[in-house]
Amino acid sequence: MSATLESLIEALRCLPGVGPKSAQRMAYHLLQHDRAGAARLGFALDSAISRIQHCERCNTYTETPICERCQSDRRDSSVLCVVESPVDLNMVEQTQAFNGLYFVLMGRISPLDGLGPRNLRLDQLVARASDGIVKEVILATNFTNEGEATAHFVCELLKRQGLKVSRIARGVPVGGELEFVDSGTLAQALRERRRLES
Amino acid sequence: MSATLESLIEALRCLPGVGPKSAQRMAYHLLQHDRAGAARLGFALDSAISRIQHCERCNTYTETPICERCQSDRRDSSVLCVVESPVDLNMVEQTQAFNGLYFVLMGRISPLDGLGPRNLRLDQLVARASDGIVKEVILATNFTNEGEATAHFVCELLKRQGLKVSRIARGVPVGGELEFVDSGTLAQALRERRRLES
Ligand SMILES: [Zn+2]
Ligand SMILES: [Zn+2]
Repeated sequence: MSATLESLIEALRCLPGVGPKSAQRMAYHLLQHDRAGAARLGFALDSAISRIQHCERCNTYTETPICERCQSDRRDSSVLCVVESPVDLNMVEQTQAFNGLYFVLMGRISPLDGLGPRNLRLDQLVARASDGIVKEVILATNFTNEGEATAHFVCELLKRQGLKVSRIARGVPVGGELEFVDSGTLAQALRERRRLES
Repeated sequence: MSATLESLIEALRCLPGVGPKSAQRMAYHLLQHDRAGAARLGFALDSAISRIQHCERCNTYTETPICERCQSDRRDSSVLCVVESPVDLNMVEQTQAFNGLYFVLMGRISPLDGLGPRNLRLDQLVARASDGIVKEVILATNFTNEGEATAHFVCELLKRQGLKVSRIARGVPVGGELEFVDSGTLAQALRERRRLES
């Protein structure tokens, strides 16, 4: 096999869920049937790496220092929804049941994976939530063990700042991940959020 | 979502088996955890498109006009093995039960998909097999309906040229594809190939 082809197959394995067999199939598919698609993908990867950064206010991906949503004056800046990832942020947006702003943790507390509170941008979250405008923080981390542990830790942290903290309702199935929940269930969970008492 | 990120997600969908959900997951994974991998993949795609071509003799992918295997003097050039794809060629090579040369059809006859004999490089195959050196052509197309139809058509074509044509044995499960068969079974199928009588 040519060295260039081997490199392509190896490089495709950086994609999550792609093992040696599917990497090989992908490489041959692109070469045989979709060289234009391969060229577009190469360009898209280069553009993404050079242009996409984290929003200074909410951490999500953006091409400007502060994302459009954080700059918008049509969002309710008194409510801040905390999610684990940009995918989860998109899921909440799709419910159209929330008009506040977000903070993306870019991770979760997961002792088994060696991820503690230090791996999340919690100082940034405390500063963001303490701007004097935010009145309520809604925790919308997953209902997995890790997501619950994260919510618990973040809740304690924010309550110490005197903030009102709530958790989306357990309409999301226990053990479930936001990413795989239908929009209606997630909208329900947002509406039924409950304030966390210490 | 940023336009660059949307383009990346869209571009990832050129990969076989990648729908909108997994494209999104892949894009976020690369941005968050593996920007180096994304850069390597972008480079590998560009290199592959610009460097990889078809071997003039056997059709497989190569970076030189004629591939190393076709140029080698350690292969038995009197036996030609016909396969549907470069993946199948690799599968046969892995058995180490074959030391001849190959011809890759880069497809199969599949009337349901609108693919007839004209979509295969059959003129090139006839010319290749009629070089006066090739004494036997082994048909190693899949044992799917399409692979069998292809073998039948190619067999008739080559017999008309007075060539000896054989088919790998049905050790490959009926309906099965070479790509998913273990090496031992495929080696057996090569050894038990039978001559096709007209
Ligand atoms: Zn933002
Ligand atoms: Zn060759």
